[in-house]
Amino acid sequence: MATRDRTIENLITRLCRLPGIGPKTGERLAFHLLRIDADEALQLARAIEEVRASVKSCSQCFQLDAQDPCSVCSDPARDRSMLLVVEDPREVARFEDVGFRGLYHVLNGRLSQLEGVRPEDLTTEALQARVRSGTFAEICLATNADLEGEGTARVLAERLQPLGVKVTRLARGLPAGSSIAQVSRSILADAIEGRRTLP
Amino acid sequence: MATRDRTIENLITRLCRLPGIGPKTGERLAFHLLRIDADEALQLARAIEEVRASVKSCSQCFQLDAQDPCSVCSDPARDRSMLLVVEDPREVARFEDVGFRGLYHVLNGRLSQLEGVRPEDLTTEALQARVRSGTFAEICLATNADLEGEGTARVLAERLQPLGVKVTRLARGLPAGSSIAQVSRSILADAIEGRRTLP
Repeated sequence: MATRDRTIENLITRLCRLPGIGPKTGERLAFHLLRIDADEALQLARAIEEVRASVKSCSQCFQLDAQDPCSVCSDPARDRSMLLVVEDPREVARFEDVGFRGLYHVLNGRLSQLEGVRPEDLTTEALQARVRSGTFAEICLATNADLEGEGTARVLAERLQPLGVKVTRLARGLPAGSSIAQVSRSILADAIEGRRTLP
Repeated sequence: MATRDRTIENLITRLCRLPGIGPKTGERLAFHLLRIDADEALQLARAIEEVRASVKSCSQCFQLDAQDPCSVCSDPARDRSMLLVVEDPREVARFEDVGFRGLYHVLNGRLSQLEGVRPEDLTTEALQARVRSGTFAEICLATNADLEGEGTARVLAERLQPLGVKVTRLARGLPAGSSIAQVSRSILADAIEGRRTLP
């Protein structure tokens, strides 16, 4: 039986290794890349090559950037008393968007017994070294508000508190724009637990 | 405010131009391409470049292949009396899978008043020329079993029948493995309409 062209099969195989891309989507993307202007398709190839050639992990905060130290770590205007610890490098852009002006530390993951992720698999050692030698007055643990994010924050807090810094956690409560009738029980429990005195 | 690295933004933008890839998925894919082995990421870039460098549209059937005429058109073992007309080059692999041994003609689309696709926007002229000069005893219109696929088949049939070939359409009816209680009314209507005498 005549088979499909080898280079098309190869492209589909490569696309299917991306997260969330199954055989059908891989095939659709491959044929899309064949149908569009060659220039447009090659610009995607070049974008991949360029990003891998120029982007590195910052040796201080592990954020991904073209320069090392990254643009945040090397910016003299940032508040060097405040360190925000995030799980994933993507999350840095979220905090930049809302105007956070301190420094970051990217864990590159979260602790997970199920997946066998231990503190030494993350950038925990580097975090402790930064805090020990550092200028930080406060370390805010901005891991996710789920089971593993909470567990990761708890373990990090145990390691950082003895170093004499204030360790904080992002607020939990009602999401902006939500109605009490619709939020889950655990959101409501967080909201009561974390209630604030009005000034 | 510090912005995200330009090359990462560029990669996300390029990924978001692919069909079905929104900003969140584009970001996820970009950071995946940053996290995996550089080699693995670069092989995807190379697969795109290779496919665009080597794959062309067959000048006879418009199937995508590294050679022209394509591997099907140039295979002396194929049945040259039978031509299967499909909408999309991807569909050729489906028919190869089920052992079809004739030749193909890829329309590169379907007629659509809504989207303003006219016969001259497809490979209709080339199809008529092939049938006119050709060795074909039967042209099977394997467009999709939906409104536009049916409309396309009807228009093509009107053009091909005067050329003195048998023009057929794929069978419609119950999908293999279906239960009558669950199929739609139009499937059932097709199944009755197309019923066959048992031998």
